[in-house]
Amino acid sequence: MIPEYFKTRRTVRSYDRNRSIPDSMLNEMLEAAFRAPTTGNMQLYSVVVTRSEQGKKALAPAHFGQPQVENCDVVLTFCADFNRFEKWCKVSDAKPGYRNFQSFMTAVLDTAIVAQQFCAIAESSGLGCCYLGTTTYNAPEIAQTLMLPDRVVPVTTLTVGYPAVDNQQADRLPADAMIHRGHYRDYSDEVIRSFYAEKEARQDSARFIAENGKKTLAQVFTDVRYPESNNEHFSKVYLDFIKKQGY
Amino acid sequence: MIPEYFKTRRTVRSYDRNRSIPDSMLNEMLEAAFRAPTTGNMQLYSVVVTRSEQGKKALAPAHFGQPQVENCDVVLTFCADFNRFEKWCKVSDAKPGYRNFQSFMTAVLDTAIVAQQFCAIAESSGLGCCYLGTTTYNAPEIAQTLMLPDRVVPVTTLTVGYPAVDNQQADRLPADAMIHRGHYRDYSDEVIRSFYAEKEARQDSARFIAENGKKTLAQVFTDVRYPESNNEHFSKVYLDFIKKQGY
Repeated sequence: MIPEYFKTRRTVRSYDRNRSIPDSMLNEMLEAAFRAPTTGNMQLYSVVVTRSEQGKKALAPAHFGQPQVENCDVVLTFCADFNRFEKWCKVSDAKPGYRNFQSFMTAVLDTAIVAQQFCAIAESSGLGCCYLGTTTYNAPEIAQTLMLPDRVVPVTTLTVGYPAVDNQQADRLPADAMIHRGHYRDYSDEVIRSFYAEKEARQDSARFIAENGKKTLAQVFTDVRYPESNNEHFSKVYLDFIKKQGY
Repeated sequence: MIPEYFKTRRTVRSYDRNRSIPDSMLNEMLEAAFRAPTTGNMQLYSVVVTRSEQGKKALAPAHFGQPQVENCDVVLTFCADFNRFEKWCKVSDAKPGYRNFQSFMTAVLDTAIVAQQFCAIAESSGLGCCYLGTTTYNAPEIAQTLMLPDRVVPVTTLTVGYPAVDNQQADRLPADAMIHRGHYRDYSDEVIRSFYAEKEARQDSARFIAENGKKTLAQVFTDVRYPESNNEHFSKVYLDFIKKQGY
């Protein structure tokens, strides 16, 4: 039996400012999250906890002023971290060989997995979370604010708090759109149209298209929300930063 | 209250070959996993389900013959996928701009998050899972076996099944080793030694060191399990493959 939480979860961007997560509960949730799977039990991640108003204010610009950064109870910045592991190697007469992309990927996966395990723990404990994709855009600024040393790279951020409102669950594509049995079956135009038909028929999709002065929902993504110029710019910024951090 | 599952979970590499997950249950778990957070609700991932003996045999070499590939009930290969989204753009008169590293990172995070949500769902439903880090090593072979098209990159793999034995929970570093409050606090040699002391004192650590003919536990990682030559080689392989897939 699948616990009900997994079927009903939703992202929460608006938090009850009158309720604060006790430090003991936050620590207990983090400790449970660290039980998440990790490559070779290396735990190649760190979490920076930001609870002070001043700390959240300092992080907000790097997240383009998204209001949930200052309005949440806790900001958690999840970082790929080979610093701790390499320092252990150095006091253990061992020569680390992790200044490369494969090691970066390993640490990124460890980091995303622990972030999502934390998210599931928090959500199933009655809290609400929101991921901030801006973390990989403005990683250099975040690293400066959080005093991240060499070998540590911000990967994702969660804002966490008690939900202010009981918001609706977002739509998803039909499960068959993501599942391939035996091997990948590529999509014909007709199949693509059928998988996206329900999403396109939604009232909020029509509103997004109108608000943004576009003709199709896909254009809202390609021209407004995730345009090529941004993606190209922040690709260069992130790649340069990864190299600077020794990967 | 944190559900007990999160505190007690463990990785399962050995499966009961006499019990099979019903297809309907697998589908229900995947559908629930697709409720995981995803960037801009783009769902930039696909899952290839391998259940046949022949299919598992074909995947095994790419995972260096790790026995859980052939001994599990289901192999799930989680892939970063911009193919589906871009095909939607193309039938929607929208010009996608996702042939870059930032878009790869976005899809990787979506993929890792959905994989971990699936893992949590399966584990809390009484199943056992094991991640295969070899997925980013031999991505080209996996892509060929699973017939992955342009824009689709294997990121991680889960082997899934009913546990054969009730194995022990692995150790973890003290939570304080991963938690930084306000900003990152770098580690002195003394602090590093104290965080790793418990791990080093374990009986199985002494056994790993002896079995591998090493002097310290860290050397088992740097010289045997994750040596520089492997990391450098598979970095090149994966980076070349990502570029080939249009990122």
